[in-house]
Formats: sequence, structure tokens, C-alpha cells
Amino acid sequence: MHKNLKKLKKKSYTAPGSLIHIGDEITHPVKISYIEYSNDYYKFEDSLDNIYDCFNENDTVKWINVDGLNNISMIKEIGNYFNIHPLVQEDILNTTIRPKIDDHHDYIFVVTKMLYINELGKLTVEQVSFILTSNYVVSFQEFSGDVFDPLRERIKSASNIRKFKTDYLLYSLIDGIVDSYFNILENIGDRIDSIEDELLLNPENKLLQDIYTIKREMLFLRNSIWPLREVVNNLTRMESTLINEKTIVFFRDIYDHNIQIIDTVETYRDILAGMLDTYLSSISNKTNDVMKILTIYSTIFIPLSFLAGVYGMNFNNMPELNWKYGYPSFWIISLILIIVMLRYFKRKDWI
Amino acid sequence: MHKNLKKLKKKSYTAPGSLIHIGDEITHPVKISYIEYSNDYYKFEDSLDNIYDCFNENDTVKWINVDGLNNISMIKEIGNYFNIHPLVQEDILNTTIRPKIDDHHDYIFVVTKMLYINELGKLTVEQVSFILTSNYVVSFQEFSGDVFDPLRERIKSASNIRKFKTDYLLYSLIDGIVDSYFNILENIGDRIDSIEDELLLNPENKLLQDIYTIKREMLFLRNSIWPLREVVNNLTRMESTLINEKTIVFFRDIYDHNIQIIDTVETYRDILAGMLDTYLSSISNKTNDVMKILTIYSTIFIPLSFLAGVYGMNFNNMPELNWKYGYPSFWIISLILIIVMLRYFKRKDWI
Amino acid sequence: MHKNLKKLKKKSYTAPGSLIHIGDEITHPVKISYIEYSNDYYKFEDSLDNIYDCFNENDTVKWINVDGLNNISMIKEIGNYFNIHPLVQEDILNTTIRPKIDDHHDYIFVVTKMLYINELGKLTVEQVSFILTSNYVVSFQEFSGDVFDPLRERIKSASNIRKFKTDYLLYSLIDGIVDSYFNILENIGDRIDSIEDELLLNPENKLLQDIYTIKREMLFLRNSIWPLREVVNNLTRMESTLINEKTIVFFRDIYDHNIQIIDTVETYRDILAGMLDTYLSSISNKTNDVMKILTIYSTIFIPLSFLAGVYGMNFNNMPELNWKYGYPSFWIISLILIIVMLRYFKRKDWI
Amino acid sequence: MHKNLKKLKKKSYTAPGSLIHIGDEITHPVKISYIEYSNDYYKFEDSLDNIYDCFNENDTVKWINVDGLNNISMIKEIGNYFNIHPLVQEDILNTTIRPKIDDHHDYIFVVTKMLYINELGKLTVEQVSFILTSNYVVSFQEFSGDVFDPLRERIKSASNIRKFKTDYLLYSLIDGIVDSYFNILENIGDRIDSIEDELLLNPENKLLQDIYTIKREMLFLRNSIWPLREVVNNLTRMESTLINEKTIVFFRDIYDHNIQIIDTVETYRDILAGMLDTYLSSISNKTNDVMKILTIYSTIFIPLSFLAGVYGMNFNNMPELNWKYGYPSFWIISLILIIVMLRYFKRKDWI
Amino acid sequence: MHKNLKKLKKKSYTAPGSLIHIGDEITHPVKISYIEYSNDYYKFEDSLDNIYDCFNENDTVKWINVDGLNNISMIKEIGNYFNIHPLVQEDILNTTIRPKIDDHHDYIFVVTKMLYINELGKLTVEQVSFILTSNYVVSFQEFSGDVFDPLRERIKSASNIRKFKTDYLLYSLIDGIVDSYFNILENIGDRIDSIEDELLLNPENKLLQDIYTIKREMLFLRNSIWPLREVVNNLTRMESTLINEKTIVFFRDIYDHNIQIIDTVETYRDILAGMLDTYLSSISNKTNDVMKILTIYSTIFIPLSFLAGVYGMNFNNMPELNWKYGYPSFWIISLILIIVMLRYFKRKDWI
Repeated sequence: MHKNLKKLKKKSYTAPGSLIHIGDEITHPVKISYIEYSNDYYKFEDSLDNIYDCFNENDTVKWINVDGLNNISMIKEIGNYFNIHPLVQEDILNTTIRPKIDDHHDYIFVVTKMLYINELGKLTVEQVSFILTSNYVVSFQEFSGDVFDPLRERIKSASNIRKFKTDYLLYSLIDGIVDSYFNILENIGDRIDSIEDELLLNPENKLLQDIYTIKREMLFLRNSIWPLREVVNNLTRMESTLINEKTIVFFRDIYDHNIQIIDTVETYRDILAGMLDTYLSSISNKTNDVMKILTIYSTIFIPLSFLAGVYGMNFNNMPELNWKYGYPSFWIISLILIIVMLRYFKRKDWI
Repeated sequence: MHKNLKKLKKKSYTAPGSLIHIGDEITHPVKISYIEYSNDYYKFEDSLDNIYDCFNENDTVKWINVDGLNNISMIKEIGNYFNIHPLVQEDILNTTIRPKIDDHHDYIFVVTKMLYINELGKLTVEQVSFILTSNYVVSFQEFSGDVFDPLRERIKSASNIRKFKTDYLLYSLIDGIVDSYFNILENIGDRIDSIEDELLLNPENKLLQDIYTIKREMLFLRNSIWPLREVVNNLTRMESTLINEKTIVFFRDIYDHNIQIIDTVETYRDILAGMLDTYLSSISNKTNDVMKILTIYSTIFIPLSFLAGVYGMNFNNMPELNWKYGYPSFWIISLILIIVMLRYFKRKDWI
Repeated sequence: MHKNLKKLKKKSYTAPGSLIHIGDEITHPVKISYIEYSNDYYKFEDSLDNIYDCFNENDTVKWINVDGLNNISMIKEIGNYFNIHPLVQEDILNTTIRPKIDDHHDYIFVVTKMLYINELGKLTVEQVSFILTSNYVVSFQEFSGDVFDPLRERIKSASNIRKFKTDYLLYSLIDGIVDSYFNILENIGDRIDSIEDELLLNPENKLLQDIYTIKREMLFLRNSIWPLREVVNNLTRMESTLINEKTIVFFRDIYDHNIQIIDTVETYRDILAGMLDTYLSSISNKTNDVMKILTIYSTIFIPLSFLAGVYGMNFNNMPELNWKYGYPSFWIISLILIIVMLRYFKRKDWI
Repeated sequence: MHKNLKKLKKKSYTAPGSLIHIGDEITHPVKISYIEYSNDYYKFEDSLDNIYDCFNENDTVKWINVDGLNNISMIKEIGNYFNIHPLVQEDILNTTIRPKIDDHHDYIFVVTKMLYINELGKLTVEQVSFILTSNYVVSFQEFSGDVFDPLRERIKSASNIRKFKTDYLLYSLIDGIVDSYFNILENIGDRIDSIEDELLLNPENKLLQDIYTIKREMLFLRNSIWPLREVVNNLTRMESTLINEKTIVFFRDIYDHNIQIIDTVETYRDILAGMLDTYLSSISNKTNDVMKILTIYSTIFIPLSFLAGVYGMNFNNMPELNWKYGYPSFWIISLILIIVMLRYFKRKDWI
Repeated sequence: MHKNLKKLKKKSYTAPGSLIHIGDEITHPVKISYIEYSNDYYKFEDSLDNIYDCFNENDTVKWINVDGLNNISMIKEIGNYFNIHPLVQEDILNTTIRPKIDDHHDYIFVVTKMLYINELGKLTVEQVSFILTSNYVVSFQEFSGDVFDPLRERIKSASNIRKFKTDYLLYSLIDGIVDSYFNILENIGDRIDSIEDELLLNPENKLLQDIYTIKREMLFLRNSIWPLREVVNNLTRMESTLINEKTIVFFRDIYDHNIQIIDTVETYRDILAGMLDTYLSSISNKTNDVMKILTIYSTIFIPLSFLAGVYGMNFNNMPELNWKYGYPSFWIISLILIIVMLRYFKRKDWI
């Protein structure tokens, strides 16, 4: 995480509003996809070369998706066309900022975080930001992903979505991102279940590492979801001409989903805290068990060894040594001692 | 719990407002019961086949109860008749959402959670949602249960309830659900008592599991009750023509019960936390006791064994071996050592 | 505590507003005392048989005290006379509800909890509820107690109190209840002190139980006091004709006392938490001490026993055995070893 | 602390507004000092006998300081002169109440707590309350102290203070009390530093006691400072003719100091919590070290003792006993075993 | 930290508004730098001797930077020129106060904390306060540093900044300070990473110290950042003629950065708490491992030693001693015992 802090630090010596990409390095070329539609019109361009091809004044809904943030001049061109404040342009490129919403009258700027498990099984955070104007939604992704593909299908298939304006498109995009959180929660839930099963069978140090890995991933999740709640809440209350009143009920639906995710995260946190306690107490229990075995062995054999030692002494005058049944008596006494001790431990519930 | 998350995930690729049942699978057929009443009129149909038989424009109070959520087309028909927003229809079928209230002017949508101990002794959560209109209450249950049977009796017996409108019916339904929480609390309280008794007699690992099971059940309870407080609070403050001012005092009564449940849950949480501490400290105590036994035995016999070892040595010139009272002296010294050590441990309060 | 939950559960199948006493069973007969006074008038009836003797339309202050809640018909008669809402009548009888205040325009309903240490030394909670009208205060107690006796004396002795109306009488009653909390705090404070003294001398398991008993009593206390704060706060802000503006300063005084009690409770909680830590760390310390003794003994005698064992071997060719000073040398070496080890432990601060 | 609760309990049987001093017993006689000043006038009386000498209608600033609260009739005379509400008079004498501010239109009543380390090194709390009228400040102290002496000097030396009215005098007095908290913080800071140094060198049980003593003192501090913040905050927002607008900036300065003290207290709390963890983990570490020594000794000598025991056996047919180099071989084997074990422990980083 | 408390204590006996420098002693002479600029004008004076050279009535932006706070008369001269309230002058010199903002109509006073790692690797806090008037920004630093050098460069290079007024200059200064926090976070992040790596390889006591050092540094950070959030938030909402509406978006940008820092700090806190748990549980694990080794050795050899002891006894009549294969049998029995025990431990997963 703090790798990006280093870039922020370097940037901190430059003027505010200067455009520098802050985030994991991106090597693939920037890809622009473009969808334009109205109730009875649909146009799709997969990878545009020239951003200017996207700009027109038609009263259609237009969605420009920018995959990759390393083409700074293109960000600038978009910024100029929509008259975006330099600080907003900076924020699009700075992938370390938290989810937020800024209302700039002519456009609304929304920052969200998309979460997915990458091919190495690691939780990965990707910043997705949106510019909403009356006719455009521009989305900026760090990497190309397919979370929006089902949405593209729905637009193409002339579904309900084509009847609405850009605010509903923004809703659909954020909805897709929030839905992706459920994948993460499911993945975490599966892992919590498997840790829990092992915890009872075989509590070992590796499980502790696993618990902390999940805890840390939940920190990521929390950092993405908590501010998003505020963002969505603002969207439902925003007095902007860009948000139609009828769309608000949809944003409220996202809000409910968000709350549900937060509830699940909090529940998982409590469960993990309980698992940690279980782990620690089972280590104590194991130490206790080890101690018991040691104590049982020691307390049984220490007196017997003493007895054997006594009759190994070389005093001249030890009458027992000459008794006829001296040796068998020793064994009998030993056996009695062992039985008495074992009973004692049994009564103490040690064996 | 996160089994349902998987279904949510699948659903996440579909358009919002598409009706898919999300929850534990339901195999039994959907059952519709229908009650219509006014002050001097009463009609009851146990299992209707056709939902349209319930629809009429009389100025009576009508209660439609839908048991089972797998008949999606029926939900749609109800939705169309009452002009329910698609997202609300989606929420009726999605049993993972948290309790909430949505005021849609013509109708109020309420989601609650019913809790009961199932036949396997496990705490089970069932979603019950309500549509309140001026003449109808429609209730949707996942499974058929008898929590509303006493209410049906009261309606049939021409009690007070027949003087009121649908808002009082809604109150009675929610009241029945909140009352069911007291059963859960009582069950948990009994189990806490029995764990507590055992904790003093015989602190073993199983108790820890029991404590965590209860803790987890309380998480469920909390997730159901906390949002319900907000729901009921909203009902008492709602400026809706559907809620009569005289009914508000009844909703406030539910609110008080809800607060009382929350108080009890919080008290139980504190008690459980204390039991956990007791458990952990009694494990430490047991380790300490084991250590003491080991130490008492070792410190008594180790010097004696050494002494026996000394007189088992084969040096040519060991005068004690030839003393007349050498051997008895050994035993006397041993006894003195034992007595001294035992006194020492007694003074230390170890034995 | 959850015994009462069971009754609540049974009740949950009955209609709201049906009067059932929920609480510890009461066997003694209901006792009604009645005081009527104005600035120059005083009348006292210790145990009235007929509740109707209390009802008159004079412009005097009348205080009806009902001891015991098992005479449901009498509660109903009072309810009818003052036109009390059925739910309020239900709340008077349900002793599981938390402190609250309800303003019903013509009367104010207040629920409080009285705490006292019973004859078995156990903290006991008793519900005391009040109906305040312009000329009446009706108080309902579960059991007869003497917490209001000083107040009766003050009314009788024509003190200041006779110049005020019913609101000041209500203030005096609640003030008496809040003052009773100081007794509890004092009792708890004494016990905390005595536990603390013992904790340093002799930390044993019983103290842990004592600490948790106090912690649980404080939960009771907290459940009674926290909502009472809200009650009293509401009384100071209530815009009711029943509360004279001049009386508000007195209610604010109760509020201050309440805050003071809450502060003390929180301070006690912190102190108890600290005592728990002390207890746990002193157990760890004791284990450590036991370990040290075992280790000192073992490390001293294990090498010596080995040495004794060596010279107990039966090899044919062991020159030391035939040395003139072989045996004394053994003892000298042993002594040196003991001294070296003791010095080592001294330096390590173990002895 | 709860000694005073006992007095409160006794008082609880008396009528509200009856004047009883609640606090540590005061034996010294009450001392009244009186300062009257305006821009060009100054009068100082060290110990007045008659409180009536302080009362005049001049337009000067008058400060009456009452040291000791055991002269109840004098409190009454002051109360009558300024027309103080009986409950306020009660609060002046009740030294158990928390800091608060009451605006009674003609006068403002402020309760604060002065903290100092007494001659026995114990943190002591003293209640100081103030009556502010347009021409008077009356201050009530439990014991005579010199915290206000610097202020008296400044008044005498015709400083800036003489240009202001009573509100500025009140500010100066409260400022003196808040400044005294810095002494306490400094004292606590010194002790935390010294505990910290010892904690690394020699973690013993006494340090735990010291940490808890400081923690408890900080509870006192917190109970005094947190409500004072509210008091001072109210003073800056109070719409009273007694507080000049120009003085508010000074009260805000006290507010800032107060926040700073709260910050420091919270920081100290965090540091103490960390020290507690360090203490506990160093006890665990010590137990671990003791265990290691025991284990090293045991694992080295237990096999050797066994070997010695073997060759101490009396079997007839033990060929090794007759070998020429049997005995030296035993020592060589023992040495090899010792070296192997020591290497093993070295690799394990135990020695 | 509490060294400065001592100075505060001394100061507490002086009148409010008296100027005394409270903070680490400063020995270097005070240095004044002066920059004056407008869109087309630029003047820079590195070290001015006479503060009066800075004062003029031009409509340019003027920035006076004072390095070092030991020249009290100069602070006074500045205070007089800008008509600064004595308490504000006091606050400039008192480096113990927390970040705050005071709006005094003609000027705004802002206190911030600059954090840096000093040459000894220790986190150091330096107070930087600002006076903002319509034409001036006066900044007061304790020590001279280069955090503002990039800003000076930007002003010199006629960048964007020259188009704005003093409010933008203030923004740039605070922005520089907030950016410096990212350095600290990066440094802490690096150290957390390295501790984490070692924690798994070699958990030793030093790491605990390191964790607490970081925790304490984060306390500093938190004490600086949390109040700064309030400061910046106030700046964005302030209704002052000194803050242009267009600048507010820039302050909101700082606010976002600040929230991001707080998030990171909270995340680090959670990570550190997890590392602490890991540390403590790995100590428990190590104790457990030591115990296991001890127990394995003891339980294997204790019975064998007993057996050897038995056949070292000197009874006359021990038939085994005369058996032909007595001695080899002993070894075989011993080997069998060893193998059985090892299998047992293997099954228990101890070896």
C-alpha cells in the first residue's frame, strides 16, 4: 500500500493540479471504449484511437470508458472538453484517494474502488472514477476488466436501461462495482469457514497468519466501503439537475446493499475476533496438556526412582536387602504407588 | 450465511429489478391465506389458489399472507395489482437484505426478520416483509409458521382489533415478530445459565465452543434487531396517511420492547465477555495447579534421590556406609527433609 | 433476570393491552396508602380498602401509593378513573420494561427502577412507576418499602413541600429513588476496596468471582440509570402544563445527581477492569514463581545426581574410586557446584 | 472517594435544599478574604470576620473568597444577600458534584475542581465554586490554598486586569485552576518516564501497582476535566449580560488549554496501555527464559544420568564393565552428548 | 513532551497575554525571509534584519516567514502592525498548543504542526502558525526548514500561484505541511514492513519495543492530524472575506488528503495491533515448544532411568541379574519403550 505513498511524496514537491499518475505502474496501452444509445439508437466502438470521435452534441446517452491511466494527455483532452477542474483531473490519476463525490454543478465527479481477487489469489483494489454530465458518463479504470461486460450486454439488448438518462447509467455502473464486493465477501466467507474447521482439529501457527491475512483484507474492504456509503448517500440527497428524482430510488437500493455489506463485514470481524480468542486459548490448552503429561510421568516415576535408588545404596546394614521377598515387595510397592497415582489423576480428570 | 451471498453474486450479473429468489431453497408449494374483516364482518380462506380472489375494492381490512417465495409469477401479479416498484418486488424475494422501511406514498414496504429455534436446536432467521396499503396488508414469509396464529384467533374472535384499520394490523404482525425475539432471548439466557454453572465446576474446551456459538447467535440477533429499531422509530414518526395518529402509540410500544431486547442483548454480551475471561483465567489457574504438583513432587524427591545416589557410589572409603546407624539415619534425614518441604509449601499455600 | 422473559413470552400470545402482571411473583395483598394535602390541609390514610375513597375533585395534592401489582382489577379502576391508555396500564404491570417517560397530555407516565440490597445481600431491582395528573400522583410499587417514608414525614411536618403542586411531589419521589442509588454505590465501593486489599495479599479464584459479581450488579445499575437520565432530561424540557417552570430547576438537580452516579459507575468500571488485569498478571507471576523454584532445584541437583550416578557405576577400572580423598572430593565438588548455581540465580534475581 | 457517598446517603433522607456540608471534614475556621478594585481603586482585607462588610452597591469589582465550607450560616447569609436558589446553596456545600455551570439570570453559578499533589504525594481534588454577579465574584474553596495568590498580586499591581469587570476576574480564577492541571500532568509525565525506564531494566510487580495508581489518578483528572470542557464551552456561548463579548475570547483560550489537557491525558492513557502490554509480555518472556534453562539442564543430564544408571546395574553379564577403556569411553560419550545438545540449543538460539 | 509542560507551569503564574516562548530551547538567531509578488511582480529578500522593511500598503501578496521564536520583541512588532490580539501572540510563542483556527475578522490565525524525521531518526514535531490578512501571510516556524522551498521556487517561476491572492498562498503552505505527513507515513510503513518480516522469522523482545515506538509516533501523528482536519474543514466553510470562494475547492482537496492520512493511520494502527497479537501468541508458542522438548526427553528417559535404577539395587535375591540375556534384554526393553514413546509423540504431532 505505502508504495504509492512514495509516489505521493515525490509529487508533493510539484504544484497542485499538475497531472502525475500515482499508483501501480501500468504498462499496457490505454484502451477507450465508447457506447452511445438512446431508446431507439445504439452504437458501440470497442477501441477508439481518437478521443475526439466520442464528442458530439446529440441528445443521446454516451458512455466513454478509459482503461488505463498512463495516457495523461488524453485525460487532459477529456478534461478540457468537459471543462474539468485541474484538481479533479489530478484526482482521476491519483489512485490513492478514498471514495468520494464532488458536485461541480456542470458535472459530478465520483471516485469508487473496485475489488477483485487477482490470479495470484490476492485481494486487489482498483480505482474507478466517473464523470457524470447531462449527456455523458466517462469512466476511468486502472486496468481493463470485465465487471462492466454484463452491463454492456444489457445496453445492447435494448433493455429497460435505454429508456433512462446518464444518471441511471451511473447507477448501473456503481451497482456493478458494489455487486463485485459480494464476490469478495463470499471468498472471505469460504476461507473463514475452512479456517474454522481446521481450528478445532489442528490449531497451528499458519492459521494465525491466515486470520491476519483476512483481517487485513477486511481493512481494505472497509476503507473502500465505508466512504462509498457516504458517496451513495450523497447521491440520494443531492440537489443536482443531473440526478433525476426517479433514479434516486435506485441509488437508495445501492445504499441498502452497501449497508448490508458493512453489516457482513462487521459480522465477519466479530467472528474473526472470536476465532483469534479460540486459537489463543487452544494454545494455552495445549501447553496445559503437555504439562499434564510431563507431570503424570514425573510424579509417578520420581518416587519409584527414589525407592530404587535407596536399595541401590551400599550401606553395610540394610536388612531389607536380605529379606526373602525383598525384591518382589519392591515391585509390589511400586505397582501400588502407580495405581494410587493413576487413580488420583483420573479423579482430577487428567487422564 | 454466505451461501446466500453466492446467489447474490450470480444475480449481480442480471439487470436490477429482475425477480430472482435469493435465500435457502424452498421446495414446498406456495400457500396463500386470506382474511377480510371489518367491525361486523369476517371472512377467512385458508389456502387460496388464485391470488385474484383476494382483490376487491370493499372498505374492509384485508390481510393476504404468502407462505413461500418460489412462485415468482404470483409476486409479480401482486406487484402489478398494487403497483409495486420493481426494486421492491426484488427486495421481497431477496432474503439477504436487512430490516428496513420504505415509504412509497401509496404503500409502505417493511422488511423484518423472524427468529426461531428450529427442530435441530439451531437459531434460524426468516425474512418477513409487509406491504401496507389503505385497505390491504400483504405479508410474505419464506416458510409457513404459526407465529401469526394467535393473531388470527384474535381477529376471528371479533376482538378489539376489528375496530382498527390496516395500520393496526401491521402493528399486530410486527408485534408478534418482536415478541418472538423474547423466546430466543429466553433460550439464550437458559444456556448462559447452564454454561455458567459448568464453568465453575469443570472448565473445558467444549464450553468455549458453546460461548462462541451463543456469541454468534447474538450477532444474528443484533443484525435483526438494531435495524428494526430504526424501522419502528420511522413508523412512529412517519407522516403518511396510511398510519393513523392513534396507532402511533402502539408502534411506540414496540419500540420500547425493541429497546428492551437490545438492552438484554448488550447485557448478555457483557456477561459472555466476563465468562470468556473466567474461562481463560481458569485455564491459567489449572496450568498453575499442574505446575505446583510437579514442583512439589520434584523438589521433595530430587534432593532425596541425590542422597540415595550418593550412598550408592562405590568409593572405597565412605565411612558412613560402615556406621551402625547409617541406613536408619538416611531415612530420618529423608523424613526431616520431606517434612520441611511440606511445611514450606503449606506456608506458601500450595497444599 | 430471564425468568421474567418467560412470562413475557407467554404474554406474547395475548392481545396488546391485556393486563397481566409480569415480574417476580407477589403473594402479599395489595396495600394502598393515600395522602392528601395543600398548604393548610393534611390527611393520611395508611391502608385503604376501597380505591374510590381516593377520588375527589378538590384542588389539593393527592398521592396514591399502590404497594403490590397483583390486584389487576384495582389497576383497571385507577386506569378508568384517570382515563389511562390500555398500553400504559399494561406497562404498569410489566416490570421488565426499562425506565421511560410518556407524555399523554392529560397525564404523564414515568417508569423508574428502585435498587436496594435485599436481606440476602443481593442487589434487587424493583419497578416503581408514576402517573402524574394536575391533582394526583399515583405511584405503583412491586413490594412495600420504606424509601418514601422520609418524604411522608416531610409532608406531614408541613414543610416546604406543601406549598408546591403535584410536579414537586413527583420530583421528591424520583429524588428519593435516585438517592437510593447512592446506597448501592457505597456498598459496591466498600466491596471494591476490600477486594483490592485482598488482591495484593492473596490473589485467589474467589476474588475473580467477586469481581464478576460486582460487574454484573453494575450492569443492572447501568440499565437502570442510563435510561433514567433520558427520563429526567425529558422532564426538564417537557412542554407540559403539568410541569411548572419553577420545578424544572429541581428536576435539573436530579439530572446532575444522575450524571454523578453515571460518572461513579464508569469510574468503578475502569477500576474493576484494572483489578482484573492485576489478578491475571498476578496468576502469571505465581506460575513464574513456581517455575523458578522447580528450575532452581532441578538445575542444582540434576548435575549432582549425575555425578553420584557416575560413581555408582560398576566399571572395573575407575581410578577415582580408589583415591584416598575421592569421596570427600565428591562432596567438595558438589558444594562448589551448589554455590556457583546459587550465585547465578542470585545474580538473575531469582532468589 | 466513596466516603463522601456515605454522607450523601445520610443526606438523602433530608429535604432538598437543606444545607449540609458533604465532603472531607474541615476543622480549621472559615477564612474570608475580600478584594475590591476598579481601574483606580484597590482595597484588600485578608481575613474578614463579618461577611456584611463585603456588601456594598459601588460600581467596583468585588471578589469574596471563602476558605472552608463548615460555616453554614455564613453561606446562608451570602445566599440571602445575592438571592441564591436553595439548591445552589446546597451544591456549594456538596463537594461531590461534578463541574457544571448554571445560569440563573441574575447570577451564574460555576463549579470547578482544583487538583494538587498534597504533602503525602497523593493527588487531591478540591471543589472550588463561583458565584458571578455583575459586581461580585464569590469563590468557595474547601481548604485555603495559594493557587490564587499570583492573581492577587496582579490585581494589586494595578495590571491590565483592573480595566475589566467581574467576568474577566472569573476568567482569571478559572484560568488559574486549569493551569494547575498542567502541574499534575507534569508530575504524572515524570512518573511515567521513570516507570518506563525501569520497565526495560527490571519488570517487577511494583511497577504494575504504579501503573494502576497513575491510571486511577488519570480517572480523577478526566472526571474533573471533561465536564469542565462543557462548562467553559458554555461560557463562550452563553447569552448572558454578565459575560462581556470581549471576555469570550479569553474563555475560548481556556477552552483551548482544556482540550490540550484532554489530548495529553488521552496520550498518557495510550502510553500506559502500551506499558501494561509490555509488562505482561515481559513476564511471559521471563517464564519462557526460566523454562529454557530448566529444559537445557534436563535434556542434557537426563540421558547422561540414564547412562550412568545403566552402568550402575548389577547384571552379572555386562561386558562393557570389564572393557579396558570402558570408563573413559563413558566420559567421552557423555562429552559428545553434551556438545551435541549445546549445539542444538545454540542453533535454536536458546543460549 | 512534558518538558514543555514544565515551562507552561512556570508561565501559569504570569498574567494571560504575557509573551513567553514555550517549547524546545532555540539558540540560533531569528531569520526573516520576505517574498512579495503579484501577477507581474516578484521580490525576494532572504534574511531581513528589520521587520519594518516588510510593511507596505501595496496591493501585492506578501509572505513574511519568521524562522525561530526567540525574538519576542519582533513578534510584538508584527503583532502591533497587524493589530493581533495578545492571546494570539501568546499562542504563536506557545508551541504546545494543538492545531486550531481562529477567525478574528481582520485576520485569520492558523496553527499547524509540521512533522519530520530528524537526523537522529526520531520523529520531530514543529509548530508552524500563520497569520492571514488580505495582503499578508505571516508564517512562524520554530526552526528553519526546507519544506517551503519548492513553493518558493514555484512563486519565483511565475507559476499559476502568482494569479491568486493570499488565501491561495496559505493553501499552498498548509498543503506543503500536509504533504510532509506522507513522508512520515511512508517511513512508518517501511518500518512496519521490516518488523513484519522479522516477526515471522525471529520474534524477539526488541521487536516489541519497535512496535511501541511506532505506536507512540502514531500518537503524535494523530494529535497533529485530527485537529488539523477540523481546521481545514473550518477553512472550507468559513464565511470570511479573506477566503475567496474559488480557493475553497483547494482547501477541500487538503481536507481529502487529510482524511486519507487519517485512514492510513487507522489502518496502520489495526495492523500494529495484529502484529502485537502475533508477537504475544508466538511467545506462547515458543514456551509451548520448549515444554514439548522437555516433556519428550523426560517422558522417554524417566521410565528408563527407573528401570536402570531397579537393576542397580542390591537385593540378594534378584533373579534377572543372573539371567544369561538379562543385560541385553534390558537394552531391548529400553529400545522398545523409546520407539513406543516416539510414535506416541509423532501421532500427537509433537515431533
